[in-house]
Amino acid sequence: MAAGLYPYFLPLTGHEGTTVTLGDQELVMCGSNNYLGLTSDPRVKKAAAEALDLYGTSCTGSRFLNGNLALHDLLEAELADFYGKPAAAVFSTGYQANLGVISALAGRHDMVFADSDAHASIVDGSVLSGAKLRRFRHNDADALGRRLAAAPEGAGRLVVVDGVYSMEGDLCALPELVATSRRYGARIVVDDAHGLGVLDGGRGTTSYFGLTDQVDLITVTFSKSLASLGGAVVGSEEVVHFLKHHARSLIFSASATPASAAAALAALRILRAEPWRAERAQENADYIRRGLARLGVSSGASSTPVVPLRTRGVVETLLLWRRLVDRGVYTNPVLPPAASPRLRLSFMATHTTDHLDRVLEALAAEADMFLGADEPDGSDETAGLAELAAGPALASAPHRS
Amino acid sequence: MAAGLYPYFLPLTGHEGTTVTLGDQELVMCGSNNYLGLTSDPRVKKAAAEALDLYGTSCTGSRFLNGNLALHDLLEAELADFYGKPAAAVFSTGYQANLGVISALAGRHDMVFADSDAHASIVDGSVLSGAKLRRFRHNDADALGRRLAAAPEGAGRLVVVDGVYSMEGDLCALPELVATSRRYGARIVVDDAHGLGVLDGGRGTTSYFGLTDQVDLITVTFSKSLASLGGAVVGSEEVVHFLKHHARSLIFSASATPASAAAALAALRILRAEPWRAERAQENADYIRRGLARLGVSSGASSTPVVPLRTRGVVETLLLWRRLVDRGVYTNPVLPPAASPRLRLSFMATHTTDHLDRVLEALAAEADMFLGADEPDGSDETAGLAELAAGPALASAPHRS
Repeated sequence: MAAGLYPYFLPLTGHEGTTVTLGDQELVMCGSNNYLGLTSDPRVKKAAAEALDLYGTSCTGSRFLNGNLALHDLLEAELADFYGKPAAAVFSTGYQANLGVISALAGRHDMVFADSDAHASIVDGSVLSGAKLRRFRHNDADALGRRLAAAPEGAGRLVVVDGVYSMEGDLCALPELVATSRRYGARIVVDDAHGLGVLDGGRGTTSYFGLTDQVDLITVTFSKSLASLGGAVVGSEEVVHFLKHHARSLIFSASATPASAAAALAALRILRAEPWRAERAQENADYIRRGLARLGVSSGASSTPVVPLRTRGVVETLLLWRRLVDRGVYTNPVLPPAASPRLRLSFMATHTTDHLDRVLEALAAEADMFLGADEPDGSDETAGLAELAAGPALASAPHRS
Repeated sequence: MAAGLYPYFLPLTGHEGTTVTLGDQELVMCGSNNYLGLTSDPRVKKAAAEALDLYGTSCTGSRFLNGNLALHDLLEAELADFYGKPAAAVFSTGYQANLGVISALAGRHDMVFADSDAHASIVDGSVLSGAKLRRFRHNDADALGRRLAAAPEGAGRLVVVDGVYSMEGDLCALPELVATSRRYGARIVVDDAHGLGVLDGGRGTTSYFGLTDQVDLITVTFSKSLASLGGAVVGSEEVVHFLKHHARSLIFSASATPASAAAALAALRILRAEPWRAERAQENADYIRRGLARLGVSSGASSTPVVPLRTRGVVETLLLWRRLVDRGVYTNPVLPPAASPRLRLSFMATHTTDHLDRVLEALAAEADMFLGADEPDGSDETAGLAELAAGPALASAPHRS
């Protein structure tokens, strides 16, 4: 940290959305999930402020008992309507939505099949369920098929994938994955955390592929395009009713605050009314991808507002991250075991061409740091986060005297 | 629901704290965890509104990456100072605090020992950790000792208990449990969700027993006395640093919203400055316990703002709950498997004597419904929530055509 290379838990201030203040420096924000730029939208802020004023700062209880407002019910109804599904259930975080859905639906005689790049909350929900978890090679429907074929007769089969993968910015191979799931009688859940608000004019990954009605459940988070904190699952009346009475992360956790529920609802309405936002976020990322291509750098399978920039190793990632900060650009460093070393850049509907040009200029100035790194050699996969933050595990920690 | 007996997910409106509106009826709220009445406190609301205005409606990312504000750091510093511990880590919910702490500290070669009445988030965190989970008889330090004695040599031992048990309102037997944990070289974590703000002028269960420095970690939630949504762990620098880099529910979930972090901080400051609130909440519950005693009803081991009222069975619980609603009193029905059938009543610092007398009057009018039920006969333990909300499990659900 003496070298200024520690990139985590940085105290940011002055959130305006597209720029952020770190210390006394203003940076272009290329490390948020605020794809539509709605966290600072006056309409979203006003809706949140009104709910805060009317209902107070907390519901102090689970939606199951005393923590349910008509506002939560309304948000569920509008989310269901948005997807054209019968019902929705709102959770207090997106992490808890995946945790609750998977752990309530799958039991120890069932099997969960998750993409190898699936989000941590999908893995944690699967572990919590007691079901057998089988990972399959990223986006490989044949690999999924082999896993499904090997499942024992009578076991429930739940396939869980991300709609958009947050570290690479690529889409799931939904048509193939749905067809394979159907062939083997498996249910399929799509976590569209990074697709909602972004793909198909904002309607998300399942709509982009025209497969919303072929997917059993869609989980979403409110902390990306919906400019809030919370999560939800959308699906049939029957399954959603079951989840509302069995998902422990819903029943045993306080509900989304009035302000957060109101912000998500306001953002959802804006997202539907203003599809230009989804398109602009995509165009902005395309602008950066073209700029990187001019530098001779591939953005891999990325086709969303998330643009990965591969680096040569852990130390090089941190050095590049730091140099870009010094040049006025905030990005997210990603290290093993989360993914191979890279900077994750993400773009917003509200970034201006001036913002984007500042980013490209900074990248061009530091191109020596990453040119050629987009041909992964697999040599950096061992070092990573765990070493950087080495600390005590329970059994090995010194006993406090 | 035709009989008006369905007591879950009710859309409440007009939250004022001590009263609540259901449909067009105003009820005295005896079913919240808003012990200090701070969710509607103008100072807490103002702090939340200012943070919302300044930073927007969401951080759209994990604290680990782009979702950390100086506000989160300040809240951690003041929580640590409040407990006289070196460090704290803030999570986006209390559920995720327990989940992240236990699953990061314990591994598959370790053992977690949890009270039989421990909160669901403690059980879920233990399952997620992969450690062996051993439950011990509620508050029975001898039973804990036998479990610890049977643990294999070399296994890390983590004891996890609630400070105050939320369904019964009783305290953990902390002195005995700490002594037993120390004897067997086990670490001990106290989840003080319902003790913070309530016991010992608000300083919580560990302070009430003078044992804060003997407890390794304290987890808290913001959705009770702190009038917000979020959670935290407090402990040594070393362990908290480790948790901030290994607790998946912290790293892979968006941070508490600016409004929620600011509300919790404002509530913490008020809680420290106004110990009368903790005392008043206790006095109000004592007033109810004395009133119940005059009716010939025991409140069991309850000595906190939570007052259980035992009922004769599932249907009787729902009927009594409904009749109290009709008489202007909102309570929480609790059914197996959560606990034996009861209404859970909870009291706030801001309830007036008039509110409390209305509650006692309603209880007296319905006393026939529960008199004699405080001698549990154990016959109602089989029916419960699962039957009321029967729905499809994954393997048995009809396949959507």
